[in-house]
Order: sequence, then C-alpha cells, then structure tokens
Amino acid sequence: MQRGIRVCLSPALIGNYKLEQTTVVVIDILRATTSMCVAFGHGAAAMIPLETVEEAAAYRDQGYLVGAERNGEMIPGFDFGNSPYSYMRPLTGQRIAITTTNGTQAIHAARHAQQIVIGAFANKTVLTDYLLAQSGDVLLLCSGWKNNVNLEDTIFAGAMVVALASVCQPRDDAATISSLLYTAANQNKRYYLQNSTHYQRLLQLRLQADVKYCLRADTQPVLPIYRDGQLVNALPQPI
Amino acid sequence: MQRGIRVCLSPALIGNYKLEQTTVVVIDILRATTSMCVAFGHGAAAMIPLETVEEAAAYRDQGYLVGAERNGEMIPGFDFGNSPYSYMRPLTGQRIAITTTNGTQAIHAARHAQQIVIGAFANKTVLTDYLLAQSGDVLLLCSGWKNNVNLEDTIFAGAMVVALASVCQPRDDAATISSLLYTAANQNKRYYLQNSTHYQRLLQLRLQADVKYCLRADTQPVLPIYRDGQLVNALPQPI
Repeated sequence: MQRGIRVCLSPALIGNYKLEQTTVVVIDILRATTSMCVAFGHGAAAMIPLETVEEAAAYRDQGYLVGAERNGEMIPGFDFGNSPYSYMRPLTGQRIAITTTNGTQAIHAARHAQQIVIGAFANKTVLTDYLLAQSGDVLLLCSGWKNNVNLEDTIFAGAMVVALASVCQPRDDAATISSLLYTAANQNKRYYLQNSTHYQRLLQLRLQADVKYCLRADTQPVLPIYRDGQLVNALPQPI
Repeated sequence: MQRGIRVCLSPALIGNYKLEQTTVVVIDILRATTSMCVAFGHGAAAMIPLETVEEAAAYRDQGYLVGAERNGEMIPGFDFGNSPYSYMRPLTGQRIAITTTNGTQAIHAARHAQQIVIGAFANKTVLTDYLLAQSGDVLLLCSGWKNNVNLEDTIFAGAMVVALASVCQPRDDAATISSLLYTAANQNKRYYLQNSTHYQRLLQLRLQADVKYCLRADTQPVLPIYRDGQLVNALPQPI
C-alpha cells in the first residue's frame, strides 16, 4: 500500500490526525526549526524543547545553555533568542534547552507520534532523503503563529509534499493546498512572503537577515530527531 | 481605518478570531451553503440550521420540511438531503429545518458574530455587493470536512478576498494563502478540485452533477442572513 502524506496547518488541528505509525515533521521556518538545525550544525549534542519560560529558567539554573523567545524577541537573561545567527558559535557537546512561541509547542502537540523530526529549508535535502527511506505515513505539522495558519510553514510543507511525491500520496486537502501554493511561490519565495504577517513582524524587529537565512535551502545537513524528551542529531556531521 | 479580511480555514480554528463587529461568511461549497442559496432562490421563507439529527427529527414531527445529511448522504425519512437539486422545487413561504455534516455546525460556531451571512459560488456577486456596502471586518469561515481544511471552501474564500480587495485588506496569512490559491485555480476550478478529497467522496456517491452545479457562479441571486436563530433572505427575489 502506498504511503500517505498529510499537512496539519496549525497545532490546533492536530486532533484530526492519527499520530501512531506516523512520522511527524515539525516545521517552524521563521525561526525555531531553522535555528535548531543551525545549533546541531554547530555541534550541539542535544536540544531540550520546553513549553514554558519557567521550565527554561529551571534548566538555566542547572547550568544548561538556554534559548528563550516570545513574540519574536529574546527573553533577557537567556543565552539565545530565536535567531539562527545566535546559534552560529561552537556548540560541540552542548546540551541546550529551548522554548519558543510556536515551534516547541508544536513538538509537544506531536508527542504521541511514532517519531518526530525537525524540518526547515536549512535541512531540506537531508530530511527528504531520510523520509524517502522510511516506511509509514508522513504528517507535516506547521507550527503557525499562536495557532493561526502561516504562509512560510505552509509553503515549506508544500515543498516537502512535492519532494516526496514519488513515494507518498497526498491524503488530505491541506497537502494539496500546500503543494499548489509551493509550486506557485517557488520561483520567488521572498516576494510571496512579503505578504506573510510573521515576515512583517520580523521586519519590524529589524530581522531581515534572519528571514533571508531561513529561506535558504540546505545550509545545515543535519537531522534533528526527538528521542526520550530531547532532540538529537540522527546524522552527525563534522563541524 | 481600512477594513480587514481574514480566513478561518476550519471551524476548529474559530477561537483564534474576534467575532464581535465582524461579518462572518459561512462557506460550505459542497454542498450546504450552495443548497441554502437554491432553497431561498425557490422562495423559502426561512431555514433553521440545526446541529443534530435529533433536533431535525423534532422539527419534522412539528410539520416542518426538513433536510438532513451526514457523510454526504441523505438520512432516510427526511425531505431533503444536501443536494442543491433536491431544493429545486416550489418552496414559496416554506420554513425548512436543516442539519448537515459541516455547514450547519459552522453557523453554530460563528453565533457570536455581529452578523452571519451564507456564501457560495451560487450567490457570489450578490454577496460581494452586500459586503462592499457594509462597514467593519469580514471573516470568511470555511466549514471544511469534520474540522479538516478543504480545497473548495478555501478556493471560494480566496475568490472573496480577491473580490473585496478594493476595500478589505488581508489581515492573516490564511487570507493570503486563499487568494493565491484562487488565482492559481481560477482558470480551471474543476481540474483543481479533482484533487479534493470531498470531490472524490461525492464522485463515489455519483454526485458529479451536484459538484458541477456547486461551482457555477451566480445561479441564485439571494443573500441568506442569520437572524434570531434562522436564516432569511435579505434580498428577496421573484421566483
């Protein structure tokens, strides 16, 4: 039986999907899943996704490096915000706790999946190759913005539907919508994303460089996978 | 201040939106909102949207004409299913109770809005003219399929975003996604909808004619509006 692929456009819709025997790809292009790829690309040993700032503070007090972002801005007193550039430093062997507005919440929403992997343009080809070699269905989970659907996660989900089309058949309309949108947007993603509310939010915070980086493909050949409450790199690379 | 327009892609996301001072357009292209337009186009005085089949049976027992559909099929013992063709008969002065899998549930989800109107390709121009003449924000509410996002409602939402672009600015990414999708699909809606799960479901039920009818624009110049627990036609037409 051919494998199926579906797209959950908001974590608030996760209840519509069967997660057992499914690989869930958590997507938060601007910027959590991109930044996670950067951290693993710089040698991080593990990342612990947390739902609340209070949990993040507790990890900090235990000596962990900690990233904490809400509403697009770094929370003062932590080591990283949500900018991919903040993770571009030697992190070999480091275990990093992280909480963000949307991305880490989405990982929590997917916790009953057979496996959870992290997806972004930054690791697109590595992710595609990994998913092609798996069996079972794929669910692309867009983190969105506070449960609202967003453009950039939907476009990346569409990119993955297209990339996996040889082995995975779209099984819901959101997969079809995403792939049509990606096909339309692919020629000029930044032009399309000018209409994205989160793109505008980041521009107001003077984060143009972050946006540009987050849309670049294959900058970080890593495969963050969720195991026993933390993300590890299933494809360790020389840094 | 310019008016805003947003798209709620599933009734399960309605909690993300402010409904006060907002006109909500309930959309269920295949087939509930199309069929409602047909009923009013044939003279119906009112339609009472109900959430459950039990409520529908109670109305039947009081002598109402009643439409009842679940999972694409008419429930035996009622007067109408969800086919627009079933409402193509003289209905002058009739009050009709109706319950469907998705559309009547969406009306209930929007009940705190300033006003609720019914939208479909069948009444697209009348609806557009009405919304252009209003003030305040517009929320296009896609009924979807059991809280899943669907292609045909999203495409129609996009058609309305485009039609209202001169007065209403997109305020969420779902509005942008819908309008991009409509622009891509408009040349050949039926071709695009071949990928729709609900289109396929209706084809299996041999309802090609229903699908074709539901995609035709401006067949019913009516404006169903929700007042005091029932839909009435704010634009009565000679039948």
